[in-house]
Amino acid sequence: MLMEDHVTPRRVVIIGGGFAGLFAARALRRAPVAVTVVDRRAHHLFQPLLYQCAAGILSEGQIAQPLRAVLRRRPNVSCLLAEAIDVDPRANVVYARRPDGGALELPYDDLIVAVGMRQSYFGHDEFAEHAPGMKTLKDALDIRRRLYQAFEMAETATDPEERRQWLTFALVGGGPTGVELAGQIREIAGHTLDREFRTIDSTEARVLLFEGSDKVLRTFGPHLADRAARTLRHLGVEIHLGTVVTAVDADGLIVKDRSGASTRFPARTVLWTAGVEAPPIAAALARATGATQDRAGRIAVQPDLTLEAYPNIRVTGDVMDLNRLPGLAEVAMQTGAYAGRAVRHSVEARKKQPRPFRYVDLGSAAYICRGKAVVKIGRIHLSGLAGWLVWLLVHLAFLTGFRSRLGAVLSWAVTFASGSRRERAFAMSDRDPSPEPLAGTRAPATSA
Amino acid sequence: MLMEDHVTPRRVVIIGGGFAGLFAARALRRAPVAVTVVDRRAHHLFQPLLYQCAAGILSEGQIAQPLRAVLRRRPNVSCLLAEAIDVDPRANVVYARRPDGGALELPYDDLIVAVGMRQSYFGHDEFAEHAPGMKTLKDALDIRRRLYQAFEMAETATDPEERRQWLTFALVGGGPTGVELAGQIREIAGHTLDREFRTIDSTEARVLLFEGSDKVLRTFGPHLADRAARTLRHLGVEIHLGTVVTAVDADGLIVKDRSGASTRFPARTVLWTAGVEAPPIAAALARATGATQDRAGRIAVQPDLTLEAYPNIRVTGDVMDLNRLPGLAEVAMQTGAYAGRAVRHSVEARKKQPRPFRYVDLGSAAYICRGKAVVKIGRIHLSGLAGWLVWLLVHLAFLTGFRSRLGAVLSWAVTFASGSRRERAFAMSDRDPSPEPLAGTRAPATSA
Repeated sequence: MLMEDHVTPRRVVIIGGGFAGLFAARALRRAPVAVTVVDRRAHHLFQPLLYQCAAGILSEGQIAQPLRAVLRRRPNVSCLLAEAIDVDPRANVVYARRPDGGALELPYDDLIVAVGMRQSYFGHDEFAEHAPGMKTLKDALDIRRRLYQAFEMAETATDPEERRQWLTFALVGGGPTGVELAGQIREIAGHTLDREFRTIDSTEARVLLFEGSDKVLRTFGPHLADRAARTLRHLGVEIHLGTVVTAVDADGLIVKDRSGASTRFPARTVLWTAGVEAPPIAAALARATGATQDRAGRIAVQPDLTLEAYPNIRVTGDVMDLNRLPGLAEVAMQTGAYAGRAVRHSVEARKKQPRPFRYVDLGSAAYICRGKAVVKIGRIHLSGLAGWLVWLLVHLAFLTGFRSRLGAVLSWAVTFASGSRRERAFAMSDRDPSPEPLAGTRAPATSA
Repeated sequence: MLMEDHVTPRRVVIIGGGFAGLFAARALRRAPVAVTVVDRRAHHLFQPLLYQCAAGILSEGQIAQPLRAVLRRRPNVSCLLAEAIDVDPRANVVYARRPDGGALELPYDDLIVAVGMRQSYFGHDEFAEHAPGMKTLKDALDIRRRLYQAFEMAETATDPEERRQWLTFALVGGGPTGVELAGQIREIAGHTLDREFRTIDSTEARVLLFEGSDKVLRTFGPHLADRAARTLRHLGVEIHLGTVVTAVDADGLIVKDRSGASTRFPARTVLWTAGVEAPPIAAALARATGATQDRAGRIAVQPDLTLEAYPNIRVTGDVMDLNRLPGLAEVAMQTGAYAGRAVRHSVEARKKQPRPFRYVDLGSAAYICRGKAVVKIGRIHLSGLAGWLVWLLVHLAFLTGFRSRLGAVLSWAVTFASGSRRERAFAMSDRDPSPEPLAGTRAPATSA
């Protein structure tokens, strides 16, 4: 009925197809609107399991579904593969760029910004070359290659010092992703690669975890943080608290501790999970609308997620700055759904003033190793096997689609039972030397 | 017992961990030798299903197992991730290069060369940028990204001519890989992407198949070749026989037919499966040993697969030139196993002269589309559903490991029944423009 009242349906542009964007699109499923989801990637990524793709447990397809496949049954939604680069809030247009550089203009009546955050190196973008982040599928595949290739390099190293460096893995950042990766690397070294190498002993791999504050998993509270640290140490992870990384190169990193002393740690694999920053579109939006950004670039919003001067622009998810809510999938889902509902209510011309957004904390979880996880749900704190079982249920409940769930359960069962991992295959890097030219390598005179 | 006779076991170096190298290593499992398998990639790739990884049906892990995981239960085998770059047949040393450029020397008593072939552009290596080949995992992931991204680009194209170009896929080479890819693209367009797009009709995608000879699947004989061509045409593949590609760029290709006339075909996706050539190590080996190479670089061998002047060097698989045997997995397996057995017999000091290698033709198969394949086993020629069932059984029998088989069967069942594909996720290319700088894009004056 409402549909018939509108000759041209109201146009809703959603920037970003992560949890926030997807939940906004879902909340609009019965609204008489034309929704456009624009994302620089063609897939909805199940970010909380990205580390399992990096660690060789899950395949890309198990954690990333094509956005348009997820949304195929919503006739009022269309998807565009393009990156939003600017917004004109007076003309109500989003400017986007296609992968080949072509320009797109997307006019809107309502705009929902759900662009997420990307890895931050705190002004040291030069670290990225040697210390990849963990935000995209490409990052995960890069890390998978680095992890497994490091053991291969150690196996063929002739210098013992070089071998030790290849068998040392440094993780910067003691949040959930850093902790999860640290646990994974120790499990790969101890279980997955067991008896595969002839020269090295993979179980000797060192994992160093550097964290700036005085706790890993600080957001879980002191009790669970201490439990997690104990489990990690038991696994063989060396935790360095109160440290700041001041340099990273191909052979290791330099770390400053609270006394001001600098120490160099040799390590051929450095992974970075230490911080996030808003993508450039957030700054463009702030410039155009006069919205304020916090230090990481998050955009301050009203209690109803709108921008002060622009009630038709809503900001959701990780890139939203409201009551210091953390960058969790749960926050993204709830703010996305709220923004979608708010647009629907305004289309349906409901008189009632919308209630401000209220976050319902459903808890958070971090996997540490086989059979061990920490979970915080309100006052309930779980660790060890109980935590792991809850972790399992929560992740199964939220994985998109039945087939992903079945596939993940099978993969987890195999990895849990035998330690082996199905998805260890990696493509070689562009940076590895190409076969030609032969010049510069050692070759016998007979064939020179 | 034999083990005890030798203080230092005889050293066997196998270059390449494909079918030939793996079967050689297996044939040596009970021999008192120290085997080293050296490969530039850490994985054994199940090459015959690589196109299914490109097409989004199978994951990397389903078609590529870590070499050292496959060989973990063989205590006399070690694996090295390095590329063989030269051989000194008088000093009995293989020179290799690690991924970081470091040099390795591998002394041997017996050498088995099983390096395979790589894509050839017939002297036009500049085609590779716009027309990727189909030999490695990286190729498959690159093709997967290009295929699915082409439909995304068509969806956002504003110019109808550009849209048509994005929806045109050109395949160069009418062998099994070209035919299999052609079938896959038509199935993706017709089934997988059904109802996912709003602007384009994915079923309109054109697939052009260019072949130099007068038949596709020529090696299957005229009867099956004609059946395959009919099935392809019925699927909507446009077959251009007797054509030679003379130029490829980002927007299409130029093709010369037998009359000498040149035609330009606009197509934004060009895939190349037309030819193979030997990797550089083959030329290095030929130079060092005086062995002769055929036009594609294959190395001529004696009937017992050794080189004329070097009875301790054996060449196997695709890179071997013997009785014009084709580059099939089956030939690689049989020659690899033969070479491994020959080394074992010589270690065991058997007096008997080894019989020359004899190829037992177990047949060949090519998948065309759901429920249709062609199979040739001696005089038995199968096509359609019967061929497809045999194809299924043969591939299940040869897939490495039970889990790969189970995974593949599940993936095939889903794709066959519903047309949907689990592994459509792809990482964006390095060549896609990065978010910054914004300069050069259209942006409103207000935020410039």
